[in-house]
Amino acid sequence: MADQKILKIGVVGGTGYTGVELLRLLAQHKHCELKVITSRQEAGTPVAAMFPNLRGHVDLDFSAPSDAELKKCDVVFFATPNGVAMQQARALFDGGVRIIDIAADFRIKDVATWEKWYATKHACPELIAEAVYGLPEVNREQIKGARIVANPGCYPTAVQLGFLPLIKSGKVDLEHLIADAKSGVSGAGRKAEVHTLFAEASDNFKAYGVSGHRHHPEISQGLNAMAGRAARLVFVPHLTPLIRGIHATLYAQLTGSVDLQQLFEQQFADEPFVDVLPAGSHPETRSVRGSNICRIAVHQPQGGDIAVVLSVIDNLTKGAAGQAVQNMNIMYGLPETTGLEQIALMP
Amino acid sequence: MADQKILKIGVVGGTGYTGVELLRLLAQHKHCELKVITSRQEAGTPVAAMFPNLRGHVDLDFSAPSDAELKKCDVVFFATPNGVAMQQARALFDGGVRIIDIAADFRIKDVATWEKWYATKHACPELIAEAVYGLPEVNREQIKGARIVANPGCYPTAVQLGFLPLIKSGKVDLEHLIADAKSGVSGAGRKAEVHTLFAEASDNFKAYGVSGHRHHPEISQGLNAMAGRAARLVFVPHLTPLIRGIHATLYAQLTGSVDLQQLFEQQFADEPFVDVLPAGSHPETRSVRGSNICRIAVHQPQGGDIAVVLSVIDNLTKGAAGQAVQNMNIMYGLPETTGLEQIALMP
Amino acid sequence: MADQKILKIGVVGGTGYTGVELLRLLAQHKHCELKVITSRQEAGTPVAAMFPNLRGHVDLDFSAPSDAELKKCDVVFFATPNGVAMQQARALFDGGVRIIDIAADFRIKDVATWEKWYATKHACPELIAEAVYGLPEVNREQIKGARIVANPGCYPTAVQLGFLPLIKSGKVDLEHLIADAKSGVSGAGRKAEVHTLFAEASDNFKAYGVSGHRHHPEISQGLNAMAGRAARLVFVPHLTPLIRGIHATLYAQLTGSVDLQQLFEQQFADEPFVDVLPAGSHPETRSVRGSNICRIAVHQPQGGDIAVVLSVIDNLTKGAAGQAVQNMNIMYGLPETTGLEQIALMP
Amino acid sequence: MADQKILKIGVVGGTGYTGVELLRLLAQHKHCELKVITSRQEAGTPVAAMFPNLRGHVDLDFSAPSDAELKKCDVVFFATPNGVAMQQARALFDGGVRIIDIAADFRIKDVATWEKWYATKHACPELIAEAVYGLPEVNREQIKGARIVANPGCYPTAVQLGFLPLIKSGKVDLEHLIADAKSGVSGAGRKAEVHTLFAEASDNFKAYGVSGHRHHPEISQGLNAMAGRAARLVFVPHLTPLIRGIHATLYAQLTGSVDLQQLFEQQFADEPFVDVLPAGSHPETRSVRGSNICRIAVHQPQGGDIAVVLSVIDNLTKGAAGQAVQNMNIMYGLPETTGLEQIALMP
Repeated sequence: MADQKILKIGVVGGTGYTGVELLRLLAQHKHCELKVITSRQEAGTPVAAMFPNLRGHVDLDFSAPSDAELKKCDVVFFATPNGVAMQQARALFDGGVRIIDIAADFRIKDVATWEKWYATKHACPELIAEAVYGLPEVNREQIKGARIVANPGCYPTAVQLGFLPLIKSGKVDLEHLIADAKSGVSGAGRKAEVHTLFAEASDNFKAYGVSGHRHHPEISQGLNAMAGRAARLVFVPHLTPLIRGIHATLYAQLTGSVDLQQLFEQQFADEPFVDVLPAGSHPETRSVRGSNICRIAVHQPQGGDIAVVLSVIDNLTKGAAGQAVQNMNIMYGLPETTGLEQIALMP
Repeated sequence: MADQKILKIGVVGGTGYTGVELLRLLAQHKHCELKVITSRQEAGTPVAAMFPNLRGHVDLDFSAPSDAELKKCDVVFFATPNGVAMQQARALFDGGVRIIDIAADFRIKDVATWEKWYATKHACPELIAEAVYGLPEVNREQIKGARIVANPGCYPTAVQLGFLPLIKSGKVDLEHLIADAKSGVSGAGRKAEVHTLFAEASDNFKAYGVSGHRHHPEISQGLNAMAGRAARLVFVPHLTPLIRGIHATLYAQLTGSVDLQQLFEQQFADEPFVDVLPAGSHPETRSVRGSNICRIAVHQPQGGDIAVVLSVIDNLTKGAAGQAVQNMNIMYGLPETTGLEQIALMP
Repeated sequence: MADQKILKIGVVGGTGYTGVELLRLLAQHKHCELKVITSRQEAGTPVAAMFPNLRGHVDLDFSAPSDAELKKCDVVFFATPNGVAMQQARALFDGGVRIIDIAADFRIKDVATWEKWYATKHACPELIAEAVYGLPEVNREQIKGARIVANPGCYPTAVQLGFLPLIKSGKVDLEHLIADAKSGVSGAGRKAEVHTLFAEASDNFKAYGVSGHRHHPEISQGLNAMAGRAARLVFVPHLTPLIRGIHATLYAQLTGSVDLQQLFEQQFADEPFVDVLPAGSHPETRSVRGSNICRIAVHQPQGGDIAVVLSVIDNLTKGAAGQAVQNMNIMYGLPETTGLEQIALMP
Repeated sequence: MADQKILKIGVVGGTGYTGVELLRLLAQHKHCELKVITSRQEAGTPVAAMFPNLRGHVDLDFSAPSDAELKKCDVVFFATPNGVAMQQARALFDGGVRIIDIAADFRIKDVATWEKWYATKHACPELIAEAVYGLPEVNREQIKGARIVANPGCYPTAVQLGFLPLIKSGKVDLEHLIADAKSGVSGAGRKAEVHTLFAEASDNFKAYGVSGHRHHPEISQGLNAMAGRAARLVFVPHLTPLIRGIHATLYAQLTGSVDLQQLFEQQFADEPFVDVLPAGSHPETRSVRGSNICRIAVHQPQGGDIAVVLSVIDNLTKGAAGQAVQNMNIMYGLPETTGLEQIALMP
């Protein structure tokens, strides 16, 4: 792709946290021009009036959703609640627009499973097969030709990247995988709800959804694909008083001898956005705050038979909008890191 | 014990977080009179000048350590760094004073293990055998007659209480116990250190000590005692941006069928400070903030063979000073809840 | 009042933060018996299911509002949104029940001003004259005989107590009073709103309502009464990432010479809940977390003509529920500190 | 300056928060090449081992301080504690190296005042006159030719920018200026101290230094210069639980009629890093998190005679390292925004 190439970009639903993060990244992406940002509720409001960090960087107003405007775009990102993209996907797809859905509508291949967890009928099940699950470290080749990318969830990104080398090694007990995951509160979105109020979520820590969480089938689908057969996962998400960040602590029983450090380093040697830390390290969520990096360390405590993987991402960046931009770069043959070179904000 | 009984109390090292928490509790304990609070560094400073929440409640000044004054007490609490209590214990013990060490000096029965983890020679190994490990839910009878109580650590309290019913049931795989524990920052104490600065620990989440942590041998000693044989535990502590609170998420493989909810309810039915939540619950750390309660829930995700226990305490109360007062109540035949009826501060 | 006297207590609207704080205090008040806690929405739900910190302390279910049950009480507290108490006050008042409204319905004597700021017609303007403004440090005598107490707002409590000695001294310029006040997020209540979400309010600081805030006329009414004439106040509230706490920084130009430290100490010498710190001090909000204390310090920087007052309270305790209990104690001739002796939780 | 020009950069003292922030900015500045980063304590340690957010962006190790290496640089930044730059400045200055001191050594023109507040003798008072105070919005022309830039403090930046239009208008009472300023905890630096521990500074709010603060004479020097005569300022700093951010709330009595909104908009119309918000706005610190912007709003509450200015910056960026880079850009004739176009991270 020539250096001067400029993609025309549409964003559907730019009023949530993945939306504002996506705009932060796209506003400084040298191959992108933001053409339209839709929001039914906020039509007419300047985007920068809602998100003052964008003052001077994004001059558009929110506009009412309209296929007409979106169809003029090269790529349309859906930064919407679940269930919106599937309503608009068919028309855009038929119009030749590429789609990157940051929500969950196209992530799960089994329609019945999707409909159970998202409690609604899928509006265009025939497009699910078209969609490529946008985890580049697993599916880079398919993403290149994708017309619809199902961008992975935040927990699924951190957990799958952490388990990937172990499962591919063939040396773990697939019946007893455990993912103890902790998420910052922005993962719940910019919705008015009591349980994510500052006075509820600050200075507090809790698990939730232990009996079942929507990201469980998404993760399992990915682990099964890696393993070539069904794996069993216990997934326990927790809410922790961070704005951004996911820390997944993964446990797997080893069934044979393996150099874990070497295994992880080799798996991710060529990955621009996975950083395997030196042996003995403990990654911190803040080390990836605002960046598209996944930092990983692997341990084998007391030399026993349990591998412990520590995997951190920024849930809004590598766990959502950043990975979406990474997928766009791959789809258009741009250098994969274009627009994603931000250094994490620390402290 | 008669209602009018007043215990004369000494506190060694009242300048840390367990110290100020202990003073908060003792200042309103109707059977206690604070006689002396020592601090080498702060001798002469009014205690309430350092901790203004105690203004109007504690009128003492810090005094220089002196066996003479402490020997006049009925009970002396050590709210000191590790390695201090063992220096003064012999003299007090010989003087007939009862000792409750909130630090680690008497927790581990195996002297070599203690000396390895605390990186110093034990000053009075002969008194370790005298000490009773002060986890009332396990050792209540021995505590009654104890002359030295080794008050458990914060992680060990949350983890041992959570595993207790499972291990006693005999229906878990003792080779693959996992404790994924998250602690508030006050657990690191009131020491000037970089890694616990606000600008380091706020809006951040990380694991630490995965390869080994001092609380590991303490927990293992307890689990082994419950099991009657050696259990293997992987223990992964994490630092989370709370002031107070520990959340232990425990994983154990079930080796037989058991009604987990009933098991936990029966185990703790008579315990004043363990509250088993209804099936399907997720305890929050804030629900025990400033109280001596351990709240526990147990799950069996997807009906599989892994039990998940969620156990929360306030690390400074049930995990330190509150449990110390509970032990004192038991030692002196007072109602166990005396001075410990505070309702958690929420929000 | 005899020591054995037990008051029958009703609480209307116990599902917000002032509600749960009130229940925390009343559940351990030795002269109170909770008879009924109403919530239209949550009728039938155990109170402790919503607020697990109350498990074992409050056994009632929320009940549907009913004058019948409330009329059997001695005192009814309204821990409701503004505009609710005035709907129920007449019937209770006529039934001889004493009312303590923690919301704003009876705080402002001028009905037109109230109706402007609360944007609704007052339902029982004739009862406003009956109501006593419940700031004990100003109105203790009238509170003793009150049948309706209008419990002050959180900002008004911190600001009025700080200005009281200055204004009573007659030595400040009444035309240029400034209150720069900072509130924790629980002050906004337990309502699902975007601007108080953790991901919005954490790691952020902002002013709001600079052009006007409901507490402004309430404070001005109080300052005018202290001064005996109209004072002019600039009031700038700010939102700060605390759960609990208000810090008011007050500025007043001195018009004559005065020993500020002595002035403040004398004003509050007999007050059980106002603690004037030594000269040169800076009170911290956490020093009053969960307690009913107002801590105050006064400065005169560089010996100039501007007095700076620093005044801190817990907005839910002295700024709401604690002060309501204090008012109840005064109304019933109980020792004013009954049930309010909690030591602030620090750290 | 030609587009291909690359400046050789030295950083003295890169282990603190202004250091890591400076490295974040310089590592992506297209006209800069980091040549040497010194730290006596950490010599030999890879910079990215201490600050993992820099992994892949900064490949240097910390080196021992050495004039030889620094003299090969075009510019040397001092991101050191106060009192270090003045020890090394003479040699570098004589060697023709330009100096930007992010600490306080060259900020105050009156040596006696500096020595009083920094409690040490100044090592090179003769260079103070050479130094230009690096507030571009006031001193841009002098900065262009500067060989030593004294980079302003964080509070002084936020306060001076907010007062600038008011004082230049000549319509405020210079005897009663008030700056009520609130700082995030990173402003205290990356030093191991008790009062900035997470468990001390989190969920807490307090004023400090009301009787005097080092930034007071620095601000006063600036305000006096703007006014052309001595102004009197009351400055009250507060510590608030943010990592980054300063919010200054400024109060000034108006002595004549003035359109405040127009006044502010005109003053800053051409400034790339001062953003005057629309009338009625309240800037949030998070809207500038990680960016070099100062956002300002001005109010005149109730149409009275007091102007209220709300001014926010990121203390580490516009309040320290970002402004230092801005000064470097000006010194070398680069576009002033080069390397400083980061969009604030929100949420």
